[in-house]
Amino acid sequence: MNTFADPLRHARLVAADKIAIIDGESRFTYAQLADRCARLVAGLRGLGLRKGDRVAILAANGHAFLETYVGVPAGGLVVVPLNSRHAPPELEYALRDSGSRVLITDRPPGTLAGAVEHVVVLGEHYEALLAESEPVALGAGVAEDDLAGLFYTGGTTGASKGVMLTHRNLIANTYHWLTLVPQHENDVFLVAAPLFHAAGSNSVLGTIWTAGTQVTLPAFDPGAALDLIARHGVTETLGVPTMLAALANEQLERTRDTRSLRMVGHGGSPIATEVLRRCCDAFPTAELIEVYGATELSPLATILLGERALVDHPRARSCGRPVIGGQVRVVDLDGRTVPPGEVGEVVVSGPQVMRGYWNKPDQTAKALRNGEYWSGDLGYMDVEGYLFLVDRAKDMIITGGENVYSTEVEDVLYRHPAVLEAAVFGVPDDRWGEAVHAVVVPRAGHEDIDPEVLIEFCRERIAHYKAPRGIDIRLEPLPKSGPGKVLKRELRAPFWKGQDRNVH
Amino acid sequence: MNTFADPLRHARLVAADKIAIIDGESRFTYAQLADRCARLVAGLRGLGLRKGDRVAILAANGHAFLETYVGVPAGGLVVVPLNSRHAPPELEYALRDSGSRVLITDRPPGTLAGAVEHVVVLGEHYEALLAESEPVALGAGVAEDDLAGLFYTGGTTGASKGVMLTHRNLIANTYHWLTLVPQHENDVFLVAAPLFHAAGSNSVLGTIWTAGTQVTLPAFDPGAALDLIARHGVTETLGVPTMLAALANEQLERTRDTRSLRMVGHGGSPIATEVLRRCCDAFPTAELIEVYGATELSPLATILLGERALVDHPRARSCGRPVIGGQVRVVDLDGRTVPPGEVGEVVVSGPQVMRGYWNKPDQTAKALRNGEYWSGDLGYMDVEGYLFLVDRAKDMIITGGENVYSTEVEDVLYRHPAVLEAAVFGVPDDRWGEAVHAVVVPRAGHEDIDPEVLIEFCRERIAHYKAPRGIDIRLEPLPKSGPGKVLKRELRAPFWKGQDRNVH
Repeated sequence: MNTFADPLRHARLVAADKIAIIDGESRFTYAQLADRCARLVAGLRGLGLRKGDRVAILAANGHAFLETYVGVPAGGLVVVPLNSRHAPPELEYALRDSGSRVLITDRPPGTLAGAVEHVVVLGEHYEALLAESEPVALGAGVAEDDLAGLFYTGGTTGASKGVMLTHRNLIANTYHWLTLVPQHENDVFLVAAPLFHAAGSNSVLGTIWTAGTQVTLPAFDPGAALDLIARHGVTETLGVPTMLAALANEQLERTRDTRSLRMVGHGGSPIATEVLRRCCDAFPTAELIEVYGATELSPLATILLGERALVDHPRARSCGRPVIGGQVRVVDLDGRTVPPGEVGEVVVSGPQVMRGYWNKPDQTAKALRNGEYWSGDLGYMDVEGYLFLVDRAKDMIITGGENVYSTEVEDVLYRHPAVLEAAVFGVPDDRWGEAVHAVVVPRAGHEDIDPEVLIEFCRERIAHYKAPRGIDIRLEPLPKSGPGKVLKRELRAPFWKGQDRNVH
Repeated sequence: MNTFADPLRHARLVAADKIAIIDGESRFTYAQLADRCARLVAGLRGLGLRKGDRVAILAANGHAFLETYVGVPAGGLVVVPLNSRHAPPELEYALRDSGSRVLITDRPPGTLAGAVEHVVVLGEHYEALLAESEPVALGAGVAEDDLAGLFYTGGTTGASKGVMLTHRNLIANTYHWLTLVPQHENDVFLVAAPLFHAAGSNSVLGTIWTAGTQVTLPAFDPGAALDLIARHGVTETLGVPTMLAALANEQLERTRDTRSLRMVGHGGSPIATEVLRRCCDAFPTAELIEVYGATELSPLATILLGERALVDHPRARSCGRPVIGGQVRVVDLDGRTVPPGEVGEVVVSGPQVMRGYWNKPDQTAKALRNGEYWSGDLGYMDVEGYLFLVDRAKDMIITGGENVYSTEVEDVLYRHPAVLEAAVFGVPDDRWGEAVHAVVVPRAGHEDIDPEVLIEFCRERIAHYKAPRGIDIRLEPLPKSGPGKVLKRELRAPFWKGQDRNVH
């Protein structure tokens, strides 16, 4: 019975004159935010849009992204946040697949203009749309089970799919977040991760509903992020491990006053213990937490609280315990819960589970079974409900009949002082079926590291069959998807060329 | 998509061996609590109960009450918690009106036995029912919109009504509570207020879902409560103002170690500033919060955080701001929102609003209009959403055409050092229609206070027409309802005998 109109209405009631958004030198109060959202919806209706119509946005983080993200669904329309790292053909696919009638963007639309009826360019054009429209009442005629957003995701494999998230899905996730990571009126949230990812909903809806302040960062840069933290007294932020690593490095080299920070969260991919340790050192006032989930889960499945105290504990390798309101099980191939400690597939149920994939009934039926979302991730749970991921199901390497979880190998590589980034995957091998292979990006000053040294380092720490049989040294960063996941398929592809299996 | 089975399942997963309940010298882990709930449902099914059947409980706070409160709905049945302060005819009415098939009780049922098919007496009988049953799977076949409980309330006026609360209602309220008053695994909650009141759901569901510990107090006694706080390191508790006043007095006279307390909440009726101040003095480590709501709201509408800092601020008289997820409006007779500062009726909407009154469509239609609950309470909101109650609509006194809000007059009386308790209401007056009248219970040592002195004290502080025209001094406590509200109808009745109006 709640929709996106409720957080806006609530914040408008309790904090009309408080700063809702800081975007560069611009400030918007909650009264202004609510008014601008209502005008945006009015403007879109003026363009002919009706309930349920899709509105895409392709833009850097900023006030207009937040207005679109919250206002469009509050007005009964559906927001389609596009991944700005995607190539034009991928973006065009998302626009056409979703049937978006309007594209709101901060860049020249190019060929994308042909995929929609209207392009609204941020700046003068967008402002004119708002100025010319009389604000409408948000929330009227909108139901909790209406679609709020379509989030295009390919994960790191396969073709892009539109994940259908309802008002209820994203609001349930907001409660899941706030009950474990409470936010307050005096919190200042740095929106550092790109808003086109569903993880943005944690901070966006949570911050508005608790009438806090959001500071937007248009493009991630560790120095700029730290400057904003110091300038605005940021208390909370959330990012992928690579962002946190960069923040910690920058802070340890060029220290800003970040004592306002009380929570730094990370998710999207596993964090190396060394990175966690550096974050603890760099941000001594902040608690560190890990989130795990998927776009299909709006996005949270588990949260690991109190990582600072756990950093030398085996549970630092856990991605946490199920959110309050969501159920997480580890199951065998038949969907039976396996005993603690046993590896299986992670399945999740609760009010945060997506309605399905847009226009993809077959893929929906594969992912959703009896209301449970089958994540494709492999893991185990300990006796107190801590979930440990061992790998994405599709990233498991089978060599000589033995299963190798690539994260375990990467973890060992990350412990070597010369290693900045590491990705492990299987390559074809006549004898073993697959062989363990690694690509390593060395730290500055270690460019001449000998792969054999690293292989020996691994063999000293894990079973020989798990250690890489070959390592490529790469002097540029690993290729990554929008949310910062390493695109192993790109690294893997050259090895599998001409093979008919395992090329995702 | 959540039901009462979820908190039990979650706590069982993450904290199986942790103490869930401390009841006297008994301890129950979460594994035991989940098992006992599952056996209770099995036992009730063995008695022939089927989905949706009602199970009443009449008992002091204790582990069996908690098991019944949570387990019965988790098993698809409906719990009917009876007010142990009600007289046998009232209890029998609730049993027959609800159609309860089973009564679980800790006392000889007397004539109540005739109103149900089965009486299960706590102790041997109840334990045998559990021991003989094989635990069933909780939650199977239970939907979030199923009825979870029927809570009989007459408020302080009118005939008793069964308030229908669904799983979703009470779970929404749990989120409303936890987002503003976070609970954690290491919290210990003292269940001091009687569990038959819907306010119990805050602590019960909130504590189980966060895997904290509940300590039950069978009958309120300030010394016993403080002993439990000291013995078990209680961190949170919730009660009516009269309970808090007694706790503070006892603590200031006979100090226990209550430094574990971090939150003391109160609600059910307005708190006198003096009582608040004494609580702050008595419990220096605790934050004080106020809750306002109604059984019909599962029960929260607003929460006032941080009262310690507000004690000398006008906002200490507020009952707080709307919960996150609920909407509160102050409206005129036509349901239009009135401007800030203007008095109107308080109406509330959101997922916590009851489904209706059991078998009372007319009264349901009066209380619920367009999904909003009309509380019957009068109040105003300030510009930041703080709600100030001025009176229950039915307690307003109209004298010489002027409206007098009895709480305002009571507030003045409470400021006099001789006043322990005060209740103000209208009595028939030939000239003015109604006259303002008060009943005052003096503090020890002030039994001989002159009513004229108190009247003069009021006239010096508020308009003459608001000051009582008569004051009765009473040497026993004011009569109170189960949740601790002063029963003004009992005080008022003798004055209105033979009159045909305003005798509630």
